[in-house]
Amino acid sequence: MSNATTENHGPRAGIGLAVSTVIFALRAHPVSGRSVVSLPLVRRTRDPFEGRWALPGGWAEPGESLEVTAADTLVETTGVRPGYLEQLYCFGEVDRSPSGRVVSVVYWALVRAEEAATATVGENVRWFTADELPELAFDHNRIVEYALWRLRTKMEYSRIAHTLLGETFTLSELRQVYEAVLDRELDPANFRRQIESSGSLVPTGQRVTGGRHRPPRLYRYDTSAPLADNGPLTSPRQTTR
Amino acid sequence: MSNATTENHGPRAGIGLAVSTVIFALRAHPVSGRSVVSLPLVRRTRDPFEGRWALPGGWAEPGESLEVTAADTLVETTGVRPGYLEQLYCFGEVDRSPSGRVVSVVYWALVRAEEAATATVGENVRWFTADELPELAFDHNRIVEYALWRLRTKMEYSRIAHTLLGETFTLSELRQVYEAVLDRELDPANFRRQIESSGSLVPTGQRVTGGRHRPPRLYRYDTSAPLADNGPLTSPRQTTR
Repeated sequence: MSNATTENHGPRAGIGLAVSTVIFALRAHPVSGRSVVSLPLVRRTRDPFEGRWALPGGWAEPGESLEVTAADTLVETTGVRPGYLEQLYCFGEVDRSPSGRVVSVVYWALVRAEEAATATVGENVRWFTADELPELAFDHNRIVEYALWRLRTKMEYSRIAHTLLGETFTLSELRQVYEAVLDRELDPANFRRQIESSGSLVPTGQRVTGGRHRPPRLYRYDTSAPLADNGPLTSPRQTTR
Repeated sequence: MSNATTENHGPRAGIGLAVSTVIFALRAHPVSGRSVVSLPLVRRTRDPFEGRWALPGGWAEPGESLEVTAADTLVETTGVRPGYLEQLYCFGEVDRSPSGRVVSVVYWALVRAEEAATATVGENVRWFTADELPELAFDHNRIVEYALWRLRTKMEYSRIAHTLLGETFTLSELRQVYEAVLDRELDPANFRRQIESSGSLVPTGQRVTGGRHRPPRLYRYDTSAPLADNGPLTSPRQTTR
């Protein structure tokens, strides 16, 4: 029992604090070739769950903020820096790990497709399609499921889609990101109207280079507003590049 | 540094894990008498920050889920059960506590005004107006500020307002809750239209008892949908009573 009115005499021993990161990128599906939400997983090389795939992560470090630990994990796993990194949730059920009590602070991140495609990964790291995961270690299937829900919810009302794209992009490229994340086709004309009325896109005045008669216009996001509206907690990492 | 591809050999010593709870209720302001967002704080009886006010909480317990610890803290501090309890954020900056590294998982809760008014509290517990706090221990001012932002944001798009009210209520009572939380006056006719068009209220068919010619109708919230849309993580505690 915690006690609200008398003091406890020190932290309880026996609780391990871990930091894990769900790293999403759009990558070509290995069979269909369609762009799908994907994430890198790490094969465990020791018990518990030796041989199973797990979210990249490790123990929290006494001298490092949780966010720095999460960002480092991401760089080490994928070789790229995140376009977006946010705390997802702190998972603290008693029986999450068979080898003792572990509380995991989980972050989620978005990285750009072309960066993710060229990222060098270790031999125990592999990219998986988010909707086609094997049985993972610990409660990591549930964590990915929740992260996917947050990604899809957030995509509908915020402007994080472009962190999966380059600096500039066409409306068609942006629509394909939404289609991949939401896993449904969107009407191009409706999509254009909604995006344009949101006021969040800025035309760059340039067009895609190439031999077409009327090459598509290039846009970028308006970076004058913060990327993630986390109120008083919005941090520099959550701003656009 | 965390390491994504090789195993760490055990949790790092030197990180304490705490659970704190921001408990909001509407109470009469001690001077103006207006209904304002209030929260109970606990006076610290030992260092660090001896004598300062702090959020109720304590160390995480090895045999208890974080949510159970948070709910227990709430019951011990206020004597009432929460109408709403949700994880707010996990605060993990390196220098939050002068006596060593402490990571705090913070929950926020809403309790009903009449329950909060009669709650027995210990001699080191006192209710404060959320917008008029003294300098608190640790980073607890910042935590309350963030919790207030979440309460106000969430009030605008979800239907948590009634957890601050009784089972049934009039539209006028509900509007007063919104006004107290959002700290601005709302037009009664507009408010009625918006609430009615949201479809979340159910008329009970009853009216307030009393001697008035046309006493106001009583409503309750439609409890067939989950209270907090937390996707796959929505837990039984977040459903309505």
